[in-house]
Amino acid sequence: MQKKVAVILSGCGVQDGAEIHESVLTLLRLDQRGVEVQCFAPNIIQHHVINHLTGEEMPESRNVLVESARIARGAIKDIREADADEFDALIIPGGFGAAKNLSNFAVEGANCSIQPELLALAEAFAESGKPVGLICVSPALAAKIYGPGVTCTVGNDPATAKAISKMGGTHQDCAVSEIVEDHARKLVSTPAYMIAQSISEAASGINKLVDRVIELIQEREVA
Amino acid sequence: MQKKVAVILSGCGVQDGAEIHESVLTLLRLDQRGVEVQCFAPNIIQHHVINHLTGEEMPESRNVLVESARIARGAIKDIREADADEFDALIIPGGFGAAKNLSNFAVEGANCSIQPELLALAEAFAESGKPVGLICVSPALAAKIYGPGVTCTVGNDPATAKAISKMGGTHQDCAVSEIVEDHARKLVSTPAYMIAQSISEAASGINKLVDRVIELIQEREVA
Repeated sequence: MQKKVAVILSGCGVQDGAEIHESVLTLLRLDQRGVEVQCFAPNIIQHHVINHLTGEEMPESRNVLVESARIARGAIKDIREADADEFDALIIPGGFGAAKNLSNFAVEGANCSIQPELLALAEAFAESGKPVGLICVSPALAAKIYGPGVTCTVGNDPATAKAISKMGGTHQDCAVSEIVEDHARKLVSTPAYMIAQSISEAASGINKLVDRVIELIQEREVA
Repeated sequence: MQKKVAVILSGCGVQDGAEIHESVLTLLRLDQRGVEVQCFAPNIIQHHVINHLTGEEMPESRNVLVESARIARGAIKDIREADADEFDALIIPGGFGAAKNLSNFAVEGANCSIQPELLALAEAFAESGKPVGLICVSPALAAKIYGPGVTCTVGNDPATAKAISKMGGTHQDCAVSEIVEDHARKLVSTPAYMIAQSISEAASGINKLVDRVIELIQEREVA
């Protein structure tokens, strides 16, 4: 049976949405490994819109699902349509969208909450023991999904690591080309552009994360 | 000396800008091959804005340079700042942005004209014998840059091939994993999402194009 992975996007652009390179690298590796992919995003208004040339906020409004559709070339669904039963694993690329649209971590830090539809979906993957891959800043959501005791990485960013600890998670420092795995929870994370200095560096960790998620699917099938 | 390649983006999204996967795959391969990259885009208003979820036009306005900055993570310059003398080669990924923003090919077909700043830049690369890579629908611009007699590919799309012929170009059918090279002009083209059915397929041709452009730079250095 062909494996199926749900990829959650959070807009289109590192400053206010899904990090584009991380998202495309994730889709590339999954496809190269023969995995069927379905992208999803919440059908909500973005936290804000950032001009990626100047870094300044723009006086306009964009929809997370509509903008995510740019990365997915239109092949994307409302996250309300996502059913964990239909997938073998879940992967969430990074970008500020994970902290601004999929959650309010960018504003609330350790007191953050996750977008309700994503939280329900991610919890369903966690409860059924299906592997989850979190990239870049997305692991900041891990403790809210898995509860205290979960282990993950965002590289070596002290502020984010501290917030993860405050939420009950355990942060492990990690090199850009490496992954951190919470074996009991089948949660894999990698820093990507939290510390990557180039797209190749980001790819090195993301490829390892995708490959490990696929291995975990296979291990689960055998078990 | 480290090689330097200028990459021209045309927005952010296949329907109204640069094709995101093609752009990222180009940046990835160039970086993996140790090439220094500078992205450029024209500082102009997009032809229009398309909702990539529905395919419908949206009643808003976006700037090509500002949206392209999403793909480039902010590391992009106005095409007016691009000087062919500073680069070893030029690559233009596809997406409708090439036919709607970098030119008006989508509207005017064989009677199209190229955005003046891009035309001047591309002509400077052509005149100095520096290699150029055109991806997806971008080769539709080749005859306007190089004049009659240029050979290129957009895969096997009859309408685009016919328009290329009408402009004086020679279209060669090409598989998604292959490239077409105009040896005299050092112009390399590949169909990518003109015919690709998956991101891996697009990557296969783009990797070959980038690798061949790098070889052409090396051959030029030796000559």
